Amino acid sequence: MKISERGTKIQASPIRKLKPFADDAVARGIKIYHLNIGQPDIATPPEMINVYRGFHKKVLAYGPAQGLDDYRTNLVNYYRRQKIEISADDIIVTTAGSEGIIFAMLVCCNPGDEIIIPEPFYTNYNGFATISGVRIVPLTTHAENGFQLPPDSDIIARISARTRAILLCNPGNPTGAVYSCTDLERVAEIARKNDLFLITDEVYREFIYDGLTHTSVMHLAHMEERAVLVDSISKRYSACGARIGCLISRNRELMAAALKFAQARLCPPTIDQMAANAAIDIGQEYFDKIIKEYDKRRNVIYQELQKIPGIICVKPQGAFYIIAKLPIRDSDHFARWMLSEFHVHNETVMFAPAAGFYATPGMGSDEIRLAYVLKEESLLKAMSIFRKGLAAYIQSGQI
Amino acid sequence: MKISERGTKIQASPIRKLKPFADDAVARGIKIYHLNIGQPDIATPPEMINVYRGFHKKVLAYGPAQGLDDYRTNLVNYYRRQKIEISADDIIVTTAGSEGIIFAMLVCCNPGDEIIIPEPFYTNYNGFATISGVRIVPLTTHAENGFQLPPDSDIIARISARTRAILLCNPGNPTGAVYSCTDLERVAEIARKNDLFLITDEVYREFIYDGLTHTSVMHLAHMEERAVLVDSISKRYSACGARIGCLISRNRELMAAALKFAQARLCPPTIDQMAANAAIDIGQEYFDKIIKEYDKRRNVIYQELQKIPGIICVKPQGAFYIIAKLPIRDSDHFARWMLSEFHVHNETVMFAPAAGFYATPGMGSDEIRLAYVLKEESLLKAMSIFRKGLAAYIQSGQI
Repeated sequence: MKISERGTKIQASPIRKLKPFADDAVARGIKIYHLNIGQPDIATPPEMINVYRGFHKKVLAYGPAQGLDDYRTNLVNYYRRQKIEISADDIIVTTAGSEGIIFAMLVCCNPGDEIIIPEPFYTNYNGFATISGVRIVPLTTHAENGFQLPPDSDIIARISARTRAILLCNPGNPTGAVYSCTDLERVAEIARKNDLFLITDEVYREFIYDGLTHTSVMHLAHMEERAVLVDSISKRYSACGARIGCLISRNRELMAAALKFAQARLCPPTIDQMAANAAIDIGQEYFDKIIKEYDKRRNVIYQELQKIPGIICVKPQGAFYIIAKLPIRDSDHFARWMLSEFHVHNETVMFAPAAGFYATPGMGSDEIRLAYVLKEESLLKAMSIFRKGLAAYIQSGQI
Repeated sequence: MKISERGTKIQASPIRKLKPFADDAVARGIKIYHLNIGQPDIATPPEMINVYRGFHKKVLAYGPAQGLDDYRTNLVNYYRRQKIEISADDIIVTTAGSEGIIFAMLVCCNPGDEIIIPEPFYTNYNGFATISGVRIVPLTTHAENGFQLPPDSDIIARISARTRAILLCNPGNPTGAVYSCTDLERVAEIARKNDLFLITDEVYREFIYDGLTHTSVMHLAHMEERAVLVDSISKRYSACGARIGCLISRNRELMAAALKFAQARLCPPTIDQMAANAAIDIGQEYFDKIIKEYDKRRNVIYQELQKIPGIICVKPQGAFYIIAKLPIRDSDHFARWMLSEFHVHNETVMFAPAAGFYATPGMGSDEIRLAYVLKEESLLKAMSIFRKGLAAYIQSGQI
């Protein structure tokens, strides 16, 4: 019985597809340092945990399709602190950022339409594009200039009759790039001139270093009809398992359509929304502490990578990932080898091969993405094992 | 800025689209009896509530894309009690049954492919079909014979070169029909002969009356490659807000493809899975009590409907819905009128107009779906108001 072509062709997650090798390593008694996935080790705030612990309703019922009224009303305050002025009607709560991106693709594009996305990009955009039948047109960016946006002419050259939107991840996963207000304004100008939506994935908004400030798509002028913001609490409150995100736009027609898609799936998780609601008033001091911690880790991983001969990488400005170009040919093979063949005193390191983050064939096969989501001590240990592993891999001649 | 055609065309949920009228009624101080949505008033089991209340992890982390290992392993036991023999590898935990149906459509069909579904059907299948680009081919069933499946020739007549699957909801929402083993076996035979998948939505499995037994698609012989089961805990444990379902198939290729779609959205809600896991061992006595309660409500609503002149309906065999044909022309208008214009001592009734449950244009416009999810006393009150409302509506000449 043949399954669908799209079921056969959909990209296997380069982040998740190594799981069987990891499971096998664990079964052999190997401890794995997980630099492969953006699962922070930061404690979920007690404000959220206390909601679960204090749950006392008789029935765990459906909420409204657009999200709990209380939560949407309070989200307005969160966004006001980000200098984003919206109303509750501009917000639909989604089942994590993933569903937000899917809804954005569904309401902006018909099947066969195109979205321009700077690569390397968050690999799961590929899956969302398969679900929605959208074609991703990659706009290659480079480590050499910190994965910043290329000149207007490069962007415009990728616009076709089927282009409906430009999608930016800002701060960037996996690049760590933070786009300047000037760069966002020139992309907005391109969107206006070519009648495109500008969709931004801003789930790493809080994670910005070196005193940089974040520019949201919702800050841009004359973009009321075109700006679509996708957000999530997964990283903000280290609550990846809560599956709460949102879709934001001032375009009423777009939100009315998105609501119909939302109604089809009834509602996002109820108790997770209640927990997210309790986190709204967490102040800047909470983030300051966490950003200080991530900044330390960023410096550690960057310094450790700099010590390894033949590695090319730039210091990320945001999020908690770094892309490193290695002196090998096939980082996917190297990742599997690290799990299957290599260990130091029964410990090894897991990371994400970067080819899956590119849409252009052949690109990224010598690159990896590392998530600096571990404490300094563990990170130093992991990087020491990584360095030894890379040296052994190169020495074994498997490159 | 024009949104997508599919965003414009996707069906507004006939269940949810009345919400603004309901909100307005509430604002005017009207109490609404909700017979419009399958939100049970039954308490969520303490086994589940205690998981939330006892949550003590430091980080609310991502789980595996296919669901928590513990939960999948334990689900095998639940299904064994239903005489369904599967392994944990045959299960992918989904974000409610909704996502299970979407995954099933994505892996069985390419865009433009067709699925045959008996109508009236669960209205949100329309939204899932829009998301996945699948065309629903309706197979009309009738109140007169309890919405049972039509003869083979009627089913076969709807098969085209693009047909990839038959989708059955058993027990049926909104029909309350329970398909016999014999009927399922003849559909299975049609599926085998015409190389089709047989997808069943069995989320109301536990809710069966009159001593009937449930036949699952997983019980059918020679269907290993074709049978796809979608399930949910929403109704089973009165936990609609938990958003936990699953997709089950013994077709390994299909499950491998579904896993890739699952990986794209990372994971279903973590804590809700932990709660669902705690409910696995809830025994038959729990369901016996609830089914007895629903059976009582079923008898009440059926008897009350029988008292109203000109109403046609059959006693449902399963689930907790009843379709009633009214002596009016436009049940959508009547539903809005009940919320906007009518009340008895500041109380009114909300129900779902049935046209949205049909794909054949014009069908169901004189029918409604009532969910008997309220206690006997409230149900009697609601039906009394409904009867008065219908009489007043007819008398007003608006039909």
